[in-house]
Amino acid sequence: MTVAQSEIRAGAYYDSVVLMQLQKALAGLPGVLDAGVVMATPANLELLEASGLLTPEAKTAKADDLLIVVKGEDSAAAAHALSQVNELLQRRRTSTSQTFRPKSLAAAAKQLPQAQWVLVSVPGRFAAGVARDALDLGKHVFLYSDNVSLADEIQLKQTARDKGLLVMGPDCGTAIINGVGLGFANRVRRGRIGLVAAAGTGLQAVSSHIHNLGGGISQAFGTGGRDLKAEVGAITTHQGLQFLAHDPDTEVIVLISKPPAPQVVTGLVAAAQQINKPVIINFIGYPPPARQLGNLFFATTLAEAAELAVATRRLGTEDWRFATNQSLVSSPQPRFLRGLFSGGTLAYEAVLGLQAVLSPLFSNVPITPEQKLADPLVSQGHTILDLGEDIFTQGRLHPMMDNDLRLRRLRQEAADPETGLIYLDVVLGEGAHPDPAYELAPAIAAVKQNRPDLAVVVLIIGTDGDPQDVNKQMEQFAAANATLFRHPTEALLHITRHLTIHNQYPHTPITLSSPLVALNVGVESFYDSLIGQGAEAVQVEWRPPAGGNEKLMALLARMKN
Amino acid sequence: MTVAQSEIRAGAYYDSVVLMQLQKALAGLPGVLDAGVVMATPANLELLEASGLLTPEAKTAKADDLLIVVKGEDSAAAAHALSQVNELLQRRRTSTSQTFRPKSLAAAAKQLPQAQWVLVSVPGRFAAGVARDALDLGKHVFLYSDNVSLADEIQLKQTARDKGLLVMGPDCGTAIINGVGLGFANRVRRGRIGLVAAAGTGLQAVSSHIHNLGGGISQAFGTGGRDLKAEVGAITTHQGLQFLAHDPDTEVIVLISKPPAPQVVTGLVAAAQQINKPVIINFIGYPPPARQLGNLFFATTLAEAAELAVATRRLGTEDWRFATNQSLVSSPQPRFLRGLFSGGTLAYEAVLGLQAVLSPLFSNVPITPEQKLADPLVSQGHTILDLGEDIFTQGRLHPMMDNDLRLRRLRQEAADPETGLIYLDVVLGEGAHPDPAYELAPAIAAVKQNRPDLAVVVLIIGTDGDPQDVNKQMEQFAAANATLFRHPTEALLHITRHLTIHNQYPHTPITLSSPLVALNVGVESFYDSLIGQGAEAVQVEWRPPAGGNEKLMALLARMKN
Repeated sequence: MTVAQSEIRAGAYYDSVVLMQLQKALAGLPGVLDAGVVMATPANLELLEASGLLTPEAKTAKADDLLIVVKGEDSAAAAHALSQVNELLQRRRTSTSQTFRPKSLAAAAKQLPQAQWVLVSVPGRFAAGVARDALDLGKHVFLYSDNVSLADEIQLKQTARDKGLLVMGPDCGTAIINGVGLGFANRVRRGRIGLVAAAGTGLQAVSSHIHNLGGGISQAFGTGGRDLKAEVGAITTHQGLQFLAHDPDTEVIVLISKPPAPQVVTGLVAAAQQINKPVIINFIGYPPPARQLGNLFFATTLAEAAELAVATRRLGTEDWRFATNQSLVSSPQPRFLRGLFSGGTLAYEAVLGLQAVLSPLFSNVPITPEQKLADPLVSQGHTILDLGEDIFTQGRLHPMMDNDLRLRRLRQEAADPETGLIYLDVVLGEGAHPDPAYELAPAIAAVKQNRPDLAVVVLIIGTDGDPQDVNKQMEQFAAANATLFRHPTEALLHITRHLTIHNQYPHTPITLSSPLVALNVGVESFYDSLIGQGAEAVQVEWRPPAGGNEKLMALLARMKN
Repeated sequence: MTVAQSEIRAGAYYDSVVLMQLQKALAGLPGVLDAGVVMATPANLELLEASGLLTPEAKTAKADDLLIVVKGEDSAAAAHALSQVNELLQRRRTSTSQTFRPKSLAAAAKQLPQAQWVLVSVPGRFAAGVARDALDLGKHVFLYSDNVSLADEIQLKQTARDKGLLVMGPDCGTAIINGVGLGFANRVRRGRIGLVAAAGTGLQAVSSHIHNLGGGISQAFGTGGRDLKAEVGAITTHQGLQFLAHDPDTEVIVLISKPPAPQVVTGLVAAAQQINKPVIINFIGYPPPARQLGNLFFATTLAEAAELAVATRRLGTEDWRFATNQSLVSSPQPRFLRGLFSGGTLAYEAVLGLQAVLSPLFSNVPITPEQKLADPLVSQGHTILDLGEDIFTQGRLHPMMDNDLRLRRLRQEAADPETGLIYLDVVLGEGAHPDPAYELAPAIAAVKQNRPDLAVVVLIIGTDGDPQDVNKQMEQFAAANATLFRHPTEALLHITRHLTIHNQYPHTPITLSSPLVALNVGVESFYDSLIGQGAEAVQVEWRPPAGGNEKLMALLARMKN
């Protein structure tokens, strides 16, 4: 009969590699059927139970206890295995390669003063402290550790930005700096495509695919999954974009993340639009505003992002420069868009496109709950109205037939000094008003006479066969000084250029010295990997301060300050 | 001093065209500055107030009262204008063109028995009744009216489907049947592209753009905005797809809507995948699973949907037939996907892609709240797990370094008879496990020996330069009978074909006789437009039953049944 026996070690610190290797070594001993070596979190206890490894004793372990369980063919085998634990841990200790190991980051920095990077992969509760020490030493930080607080992340990144340093992470799995992979990274050729990615395997999938397609990577920055939260404000992503914008070795930029916070999206898109290079964007799962918007190319999948990056390079850049070379109109204070639509789907598509570039955006056909316009009769911020919605059409013809409501709202919006641009759709065809321009164009001319600064954009949907005669319609609107478009995406690009506030992002410039030299604190295989790639590196023989005792740690920290 | 005077008419029915024309006529009278003729809904009262037209009397009007307000230069002018109302309404009445007008739909059907269509644009509360009468007469219904209840919509559409009839709408703005535009429709050439669209101006924007690009339309079905709600189940959309699938004049299909209900998405995508023609899909704002998935092409914008439709025709069909000609594996009972990912972004992208084709789908990295997996340790339905999430990595190495957790979960999933396919990612590169296939491939071979019916799909991310040697990794997985992919989208297509239940959609076939002949009940300009396009049509001189009195209407309805 098989027997599971366990041992609990409270308070001891071992790194995860040691634990994995101990589990494998135990499972390989004679008479041992299975083994588990884990921190005794509730999830891990459940996992042990699923494997038939949960002993009665194990159930009493606390989340920060180390739990060692062995399932043997009999109790003697299990007991024998458990008696080997100390020796197995010791054997592991002596198998390392690096002869002398500094015990602290400061000592390592003295040993290898030319190191610009510190890789941190110690447990989360210690990681922010190590990262802070690295910044104090003037080093960039690759912060692999997770379970770092948001407050620590914000403080570390703000400090780094002010010093012209990078903090990639926390929970940053991968980066490629000057041809050397940090953490998890595929070996790819160097080239002209620069990457900024929040997430680890997203960056790996894209960089691998670029390599497999024959392209190469200049630099690849990981930022950690929370960088695009509103609280962090995409500090590292903006730093990466700015670096790549000015990097002579980068021709094309790829920006990847899960859907960012709305206000972060508009900031990033505005920053990307100011870069005189093509930028491929894949906010995975965020509906793209268009396929192409000037120098911005929106991808649907990671693979497509890679394909676009390689294709954009091959295509050359004339295609998008045409659009970006138009001068940017920027205004000192925010001026708002007011979209007065007769078409519901056109209004909805406008919200979809504009939410990526204008903020705050409100609508009576919102895509997200925050976009819901409180009172459809009163615009606020950037507003897109579908005037064909039920509230506007009770006992009244659809606005495609009856212009009365639009004419009144047009005058109302023009009277609002916050309005910078009015956007109208004009849908021609059977059933629609026989001559919408006849009523709308004079009203546009009238409001523009009072407000010469006010831009009016008209999107015309129609064909040469429509009863209204699309060309005559366009002539009338042009005579009223409206800017005419027949494609929503062209209108979108025009509106973006007209209304976006073009921020300066005053980051201290970042220097990435070559070749890469690094100090590694934590997972030892990252050190091995650096050495394997020909980089110079030192492994720090890190132990938690005060043996991991939280109270003593707090005391030490206070003494230090 | 200007004076606003008003008149309230309770209970009277006028159609919206009459009201618009009355307002214009009043505003054009001498001494009149502005006029408003509206149903006295709260929104309309607010709108009147914004135009300075809200009299004290008007505030007392009820929502179903007709309110007539005139602002005159003085009270005499206003009073004179109001005294003209009856005469203006009378003048309008006699200006119509059609000499004899049947008073009922039944009479119209006798007058024009070859009519297959009834256009309904009477006020919402009367519309379902008229549509029901039309179905009883064996006619297709174009239901322009809004404010029809969801219950009525479901009942009308189910009735229609059983009879091989279409109900387009309610709130259906547009359609093009046999070259004739119904409701709002642009004049476009006939051609080989068939459209199904929930929304009015979406269909107009796409059909216009196709025409402007040189393409043409075979048929364009509107369905109304609620057709893709779970309750309605996309009855009309499925009917439209099935018609176009079998229509010899249609080569390419375009499907457009706002984001449908999740279970409706998977049903539509499965139906579209069974069509032996390219299908362009734009669920506006719904993140597409890929750019192309076999015969499905996902567009980002309305304009792009049109461009793809025209380009797909020009490209020919070899490109996608390659994929769809693989035989479809369908299973009599549902079998589930279990995705065990080491990469968070790859897991997230898998959820994004698979949510369009598999239902119900759960994950610990959900995109929508309903996808949240209750217990990450227990799979349910189709499940995608990111095993690198915090709960799995406390005190444990990342699954890209330590395969232990994946191996145990692999065996757990294989032991579940509901599991039909296991999907693993293997991310190679620096820092990752030195030989993942060495541990994973034997485990795959072992579970497949017990379960020969179980499919195992492995997605490999890596390059030829990676330390693990991607080719040797692939050889080991192939030897274990895993199906290998290096691109997520190819894996997605394979999984779809393997797991999708291919429903038969047993709709009664629909006949669209040519030329189009129609009866119009409601907005008269739709009748004018039909005649203008050369179609045969009759305008019904419709009046609400019992003069619009709800109680009498109910009584009449009961007497009829």
